[in-house]
Amino acid sequence: MIKKMAIVGGTHGNEFTGVYLLEKLKQELSIEQVEIDYLLANPKAFNAVKRYIDRDLNRCFKLEDLANTDLIGYENQRAKELNQWLGPKGNAKTDFIIDLHTSTAPMGINLVLIKADPFHLRLVDYVQQRLDDVTITWEDLPDHHFLMSIADKHMLIEVGATPQGVLRQDVFEKTEATVHCIAEFIELYNGNKLPKPSDSVEVYKYFDVAYLPQNKQGETIGMVHKNIQDRDFLPLKKGEPIFKLFNGKQIYYNGEDCYISFINEAAYYDEKKAFSMSKKILIDIKI
Amino acid sequence: MIKKMAIVGGTHGNEFTGVYLLEKLKQELSIEQVEIDYLLANPKAFNAVKRYIDRDLNRCFKLEDLANTDLIGYENQRAKELNQWLGPKGNAKTDFIIDLHTSTAPMGINLVLIKADPFHLRLVDYVQQRLDDVTITWEDLPDHHFLMSIADKHMLIEVGATPQGVLRQDVFEKTEATVHCIAEFIELYNGNKLPKPSDSVEVYKYFDVAYLPQNKQGETIGMVHKNIQDRDFLPLKKGEPIFKLFNGKQIYYNGEDCYISFINEAAYYDEKKAFSMSKKILIDIKI
Repeated sequence: MIKKMAIVGGTHGNEFTGVYLLEKLKQELSIEQVEIDYLLANPKAFNAVKRYIDRDLNRCFKLEDLANTDLIGYENQRAKELNQWLGPKGNAKTDFIIDLHTSTAPMGINLVLIKADPFHLRLVDYVQQRLDDVTITWEDLPDHHFLMSIADKHMLIEVGATPQGVLRQDVFEKTEATVHCIAEFIELYNGNKLPKPSDSVEVYKYFDVAYLPQNKQGETIGMVHKNIQDRDFLPLKKGEPIFKLFNGKQIYYNGEDCYISFINEAAYYDEKKAFSMSKKILIDIKI
Repeated sequence: MIKKMAIVGGTHGNEFTGVYLLEKLKQELSIEQVEIDYLLANPKAFNAVKRYIDRDLNRCFKLEDLANTDLIGYENQRAKELNQWLGPKGNAKTDFIIDLHTSTAPMGINLVLIKADPFHLRLVDYVQQRLDDVTITWEDLPDHHFLMSIADKHMLIEVGATPQGVLRQDVFEKTEATVHCIAEFIELYNGNKLPKPSDSVEVYKYFDVAYLPQNKQGETIGMVHKNIQDRDFLPLKKGEPIFKLFNGKQIYYNGEDCYISFINEAAYYDEKKAFSMSKKILIDIKI
């Protein structure tokens, strides 16, 4: 039974969609027997129109980091506050967290799993059966660093494409529809009235990230190749061009066949990342 | 005769295209008998991945502001330095400035005039006859505030769509092609070998800006309507929906028929601007 739920926006301060949608949901959303909190996660970064002030807030929620009082900076402090309000992680007073994100890549509606248990698989399946353009990714890490990992049950919604610091109606409405669909699922789940799920669900399981081409000094010497630009969730095969260097040369993909996403994502540039790599797998939904 | 020219990138620190293109042009560009300077205009903002630190640098070049020693902050200081190096405005040692910009709106290649004299009209006509997807706008203000106004002759290139803080190959290559085309024009101009121009050129003359819907407290209460999103340089007619409020209502355009651009531009949000309005006019090219 889900009794307490939190909807979180602005975990990244320059992703406006979640922040403005929170206000709308506050007025309009209700789920029978569920208490809903609405939370602007990183108000300082939102006011500065930056992803973060000192450290990416959505990387601060490992148990180890939450317990580490030596970690300084705004987001490390804020993570501990949020963990107190919503958590504590491992024994949280919040049963379910939705965290609202956007991407500068054309990701459509991307649902991010950090647990592939029956509850979460049924949830993503429920949404995918009801909305268009829904993909599911799975980041399978022990003691995950995401904010939503505070709660035992959770969903990260990543919608794109939109530039940072912009509200696009299409992205706003896709995010809104996704939240309403999840709310519907929760009401049915609480009432033990969930419909029969699909037999299985197709999941993009993250395994690695590719970096922008750099020289020995770590300076960027090229960019994402137009061959892969805007090709999120499509396959990448060995031998395809992935980078165009400023000197005119091309760099070809030399790894195993995979699916790529977050291609040329603005938020990736601080670490000089270029795109994410995943394997497409089919997971049976056991109920 | 154009003898000294400057190519400027990073006037806005989060517009990466110009900054990286500068390095490439340094290696590859040459114009007979022309000395070319390459200049990263706002290095502090580039390092911070922000449009500006204290004030939009591309608004700091009115003669009045350049002479005003009371104006504080990084960009006001930087404007005075740039004016010394490239100018001084009104009697500049630099004959021609190209300033490289990007937009989050799908502007294609947009050439921005602040003077519609025969030289500049021939220049934009030359580029438009040779490259695809070129539009021309004209901001007719006395004592313009743009950086490029330091030099008597100049061109601002605005290419989009790209998110801020991202390098897209398509946007990069369009910008590069435009610079090469302008370089070709300058070589022909210096050699008195310019081809006969078109009889006239179609120009979007800027006349006003629209603001995002706000309540009495100045808080944003809606967003750009999907009816106009990504419709840059297309006509807007009275009665069309332009904003969608968070409460579900639509706001309709009530002004005179016009053409709109910079629609939902990320850089507009700090002043809560939503789009630019222009009249399409035909200007004869007299030679």
